[in-house]
Amino acid sequence: TVTRIGVIGTGVMGADHARLLTEAVSGARVGGVFDVDGSRARGVAAASGGARVFADPYALIVDDGIDAVLIASSDATHEDYVLACVAAGKPVLCEKPLAPTVEACARIVEAETEHGSRLITVGFMRRFDPGYTGMRALLTGGEIGAPLLMHNVHRNPAAVPGLPSSALIANSAVHELDIVRWLFEEEIVEVAVHTPRPSGQAGGTQDPQLLVLTTESGVLADVEIFVNARYGYEVRCELVGETGTVTVDAPPPTSLRRGGLHARALPGDWRPRFAEAYRLELQDWIDGAAGGASAWDGFAATFVAHACVAALASGERHAVNLPPAPALYRR
Amino acid sequence: TVTRIGVIGTGVMGADHARLLTEAVSGARVGGVFDVDGSRARGVAAASGGARVFADPYALIVDDGIDAVLIASSDATHEDYVLACVAAGKPVLCEKPLAPTVEACARIVEAETEHGSRLITVGFMRRFDPGYTGMRALLTGGEIGAPLLMHNVHRNPAAVPGLPSSALIANSAVHELDIVRWLFEEEIVEVAVHTPRPSGQAGGTQDPQLLVLTTESGVLADVEIFVNARYGYEVRCELVGETGTVTVDAPPPTSLRRGGLHARALPGDWRPRFAEAYRLELQDWIDGAAGGASAWDGFAATFVAHACVAALASGERHAVNLPPAPALYRR
Amino acid sequence: TVTRIGVIGTGVMGADHARLLTEAVSGARVGGVFDVDGSRARGVAAASGGARVFADPYALIVDDGIDAVLIASSDATHEDYVLACVAAGKPVLCEKPLAPTVEACARIVEAETEHGSRLITVGFMRRFDPGYTGMRALLTGGEIGAPLLMHNVHRNPAAVPGLPSSALIANSAVHELDIVRWLFEEEIVEVAVHTPRPSGQAGGTQDPQLLVLTTESGVLADVEIFVNARYGYEVRCELVGETGTVTVDAPPPTSLRRGGLHARALPGDWRPRFAEAYRLELQDWIDGAAGGASAWDGFAATFVAHACVAALASGERHAVNLPPAPALYRR
Amino acid sequence: TVTRIGVIGTGVMGADHARLLTEAVSGARVGGVFDVDGSRARGVAAASGGARVFADPYALIVDDGIDAVLIASSDATHEDYVLACVAAGKPVLCEKPLAPTVEACARIVEAETEHGSRLITVGFMRRFDPGYTGMRALLTGGEIGAPLLMHNVHRNPAAVPGLPSSALIANSAVHELDIVRWLFEEEIVEVAVHTPRPSGQAGGTQDPQLLVLTTESGVLADVEIFVNARYGYEVRCELVGETGTVTVDAPPPTSLRRGGLHARALPGDWRPRFAEAYRLELQDWIDGAAGGASAWDGFAATFVAHACVAALASGERHAVNLPPAPALYRR
Ligand SMILES: [Mg+2]
Ligand SMILES: [Mg+2]
Ligand SMILES: [Mg+2]
Ligand SMILES: [Mg+2]
Repeated sequence: TVTRIGVIGTGVMGADHARLLTEAVSGARVGGVFDVDGSRARGVAAASGGARVFADPYALIVDDGIDAVLIASSDATHEDYVLACVAAGKPVLCEKPLAPTVEACARIVEAETEHGSRLITVGFMRRFDPGYTGMRALLTGGEIGAPLLMHNVHRNPAAVPGLPSSALIANSAVHELDIVRWLFEEEIVEVAVHTPRPSGQAGGTQDPQLLVLTTESGVLADVEIFVNARYGYEVRCELVGETGTVTVDAPPPTSLRRGGLHARALPGDWRPRFAEAYRLELQDWIDGAAGGASAWDGFAATFVAHACVAALASGERHAVNLPPAPALYRR
Repeated sequence: TVTRIGVIGTGVMGADHARLLTEAVSGARVGGVFDVDGSRARGVAAASGGARVFADPYALIVDDGIDAVLIASSDATHEDYVLACVAAGKPVLCEKPLAPTVEACARIVEAETEHGSRLITVGFMRRFDPGYTGMRALLTGGEIGAPLLMHNVHRNPAAVPGLPSSALIANSAVHELDIVRWLFEEEIVEVAVHTPRPSGQAGGTQDPQLLVLTTESGVLADVEIFVNARYGYEVRCELVGETGTVTVDAPPPTSLRRGGLHARALPGDWRPRFAEAYRLELQDWIDGAAGGASAWDGFAATFVAHACVAALASGERHAVNLPPAPALYRR
Repeated sequence: TVTRIGVIGTGVMGADHARLLTEAVSGARVGGVFDVDGSRARGVAAASGGARVFADPYALIVDDGIDAVLIASSDATHEDYVLACVAAGKPVLCEKPLAPTVEACARIVEAETEHGSRLITVGFMRRFDPGYTGMRALLTGGEIGAPLLMHNVHRNPAAVPGLPSSALIANSAVHELDIVRWLFEEEIVEVAVHTPRPSGQAGGTQDPQLLVLTTESGVLADVEIFVNARYGYEVRCELVGETGTVTVDAPPPTSLRRGGLHARALPGDWRPRFAEAYRLELQDWIDGAAGGASAWDGFAATFVAHACVAALASGERHAVNLPPAPALYRR
Repeated sequence: TVTRIGVIGTGVMGADHARLLTEAVSGARVGGVFDVDGSRARGVAAASGGARVFADPYALIVDDGIDAVLIASSDATHEDYVLACVAAGKPVLCEKPLAPTVEACARIVEAETEHGSRLITVGFMRRFDPGYTGMRALLTGGEIGAPLLMHNVHRNPAAVPGLPSSALIANSAVHELDIVRWLFEEEIVEVAVHTPRPSGQAGGTQDPQLLVLTTESGVLADVEIFVNARYGYEVRCELVGETGTVTVDAPPPTSLRRGGLHARALPGDWRPRFAEAYRLELQDWIDGAAGGASAWDGFAATFVAHACVAALASGERHAVNLPPAPALYRR
């Protein structure tokens, strides 16, 4: 049996997801498509083997021909669509962030909790990246001893000039906030943000930033987030344990000798870097394997992100007082 | 619509293919299974979502519930099954080698030629490996100038003691024979084999061997084939052009610092190394995209392999006089 | 003409320096040796081609047969010996730290300032390491744009159990404090120290630590100092500029494939890692090329180290109010 | 005591050697200089601390103020100068090749044998390269088991157009011929040369070439020699043993992320690559440590090179029947 997916939002991410569901995922097809830009929706529908185009996203969500929903529309619309999916009792995969505010995330968690079973997955695709899963396997296999430190680097070549400085945390570093929680299976309890002079290429944004996160057990994770790094897209980390370290750097399979250099190419954006992660995330979701992030994880990531934004503003260390997770989400 | 695949042979390779078709390929499912070991067939059928188990491979091939056939049985059986598929007019993906002898390969090519359209794909999966396809893109993109040399290393940790020395060529280096033809889009016209003293761990087999291949335009490709390398599985190559070189080495996404070493893990066999290649090969086949090796490619690989075996025996350079390709296979 | 060096302190560092002066530096020889352990002094003197052994370090300093002095004795003795060298008007290379306290360093600076010309070099050998000098050349050559961030990792395999937590800063991270000043040619104006839970292998020491340093122009440098990293000795850094980054990691010239790993060996301590730096430092000193750190640099490193120790104790950011450099040291 | 070196030939290599002797080697200075170009000689003499300039190389050789002689003049002049050094009983370091013909090398060996003790060192500096010595230590330490194969790559960016094809062997690959003998401590007994179509950038020279060498015990070493590789200078090798392999690639200590690439720089010629080897070679020679190649090694390298040139011409395998080494050179 093939799961029929309704895709809401067919920009870069939504179109990519639709393509993967059509071409590279077993047991799924795109059943319906909605986008505020109808012609964009029609293009993706055509490329997805003739999926229906919906004029109303809520009609898509409740349609009998749609078994599950993938939300890749703008962040501000996530809440309404996710809540509609929960009301319809349909599984939903929502791109990160779950919602832009802690309050919106809390309403989503509350709705799912009242529903009583898990329907929501948040698209923190790094949980499926072979680099990150390989690192976690080495950690849990005892290969480096108990964890102490983690160094993270997260760079994009260019951002919109004048991007709010908080967006570096809420939209980019939020991936590391989720990965730290996932990797150590514990919460972040304190955050601080250090700021170098901003890059002259950042148009006034405080870019880069250095986040310092502390977990319940005292693991320290620093995160360089730099969205105007110019030279390319790169996500790397090193996890330091009591007896060794693991580095995730994901080199491409080829290297080139030319013009006085021995080089490996870096991707231009996140899609080549995480192509396999997206595919595995979607396959896991279609398989109902529940390997993805929950609504609670989405809430927690946004909650910690907001603490980081406060720490950025104050220059001080901020405690993160995450409420206890509802029973629905306890491991 | 979902393509229903009949899998003949459910050993390591066949079971892996069945798993990929079930779990990781879009638009396919395993419809039927045959193996000389019935219980092995039943196990794979069960893991493939309840596929039918056939007692007779020829019955599987002609069954109306089977749209296409995947052959992963022992090499000696390939010819009969492939010919039956051609007779039944069904697409067939046959594991490499197409057949063990030049004569058998010729009979298959003749049958397909008489059939008049292409039904046969040979499982030279490296044509789908991101390392090799990346190298080819760099070559055809002009990044290294015209090709001159190619150095290949192909190592397995261990082989059956007393393996015939010719098997290193026919079963292992045959991958490089295919890749050289695919990469340069021309034929191999001369071969030589150099032999160091054999490893004391090889039980009498001439292992390793160094093949030297020359193509029509004069590109030279050397191939170290070493099936008792002990330390791990590794396939690497460097392509040397007039202005630069490309190396395929496919490092894993993590590295480990421990015990005085900074290390990347090497796989224990070919499956992790080529997991993505196998998935992409199957998806391409299911999609009918015809990116795979043809029966003629299978014939040519076996033809060149036999010339290499003769060169191994004689110690001399051997010309390779491949007949012209039938029109069906011309690019 | 050959410069005759008096070596005070012939422990691990002093013996190494004596060996380099004898075997690998042009224009120098060891003229005299002192150590509190006379037999150790005699051994080094013999290995240095028959240098004289002095019973009194001050006699060595003033001896007519000694042209210049190298001090590698215990940190607490540095001040007296350096002051004696200044009084004698003899060039002196003093191992880092110049002295353990800010006050002692200030007295040394004052003595040299009164003397009126530069006699003192401090052994911050990283200034001569081909990795660090290569990084600086790339930075000053404009290859990565203006600097923004620097990430440093400094790991030793094991330290004495119960080592004071401040020693990680004063004895180890002090190298990075100097390198940051040297690389950016400006002062550190603020410091903070973050602390993960200490390693269970550290015997109560706060190990590792994460220092965050800010320079006058706003460059941010973080330093992981970890003296019980177990797996080996490693010093690495990445310098992040507005358009690119430089990494110093100094891989050894060989790699090994064995036992399922492709690995490069890591050194067991700092000596192999910085062997070339020590040789070049000594040659520069013998040549009178003045490429080394000055007494003022030694003062500044200790001054910043003390601010870091205070920040470690308080958990707060600390301003670093370095007094202005005397004219003798201005660039 | 300081050894006074007479330098004959002050082109690129001779000037570099003079600089190292003056600035970076302990116990040596340049005492005299000769070059056919007097002004070039005067420049090097001045840079060497005021060495004497000789108008006659034979006068330099016999001068009482010269303790040992370094020959870096054109290959054709080596024989006469080396023989004069032997006649004068003075140690001599002669750049490779010892002499261009087997006969000339034989005359030198005969003269030294008649002299009765070793005076001649041949400048095969790779024997001192930390990469090669590290590889040999791993081999002799049993880290990779018994050796079977060795793959060598030797590339220069550009050569004189129309360079004789034999020069690739006699002047460049001769380094690998020496290294193979040194590493395995046995002779090369058979050679073959394979030729791809030449690079369009080589001006008619057969460039690149692939040499295949077999040693007495059956180790096989292939050598790609390519003197118009354009992209940079590179010397690499992998030694394959029964249980593992060692690679020498000598990456520089820094890497650069910029413009979509993560890259390490490759040198433009051999001097940066082997700077440390040259320094260690000279220090070893000055110390009289006898770690360098002997006249017999120089004879053997030229002897094998000539067999390779014959194999290049014939396209056949050629046996190498090296005469037995005189007693003076036996290990
Ligand atoms: Mg499927
Ligand atoms: Mg699908
Ligand atoms: Mg000297
Ligand atoms: Mg010396």
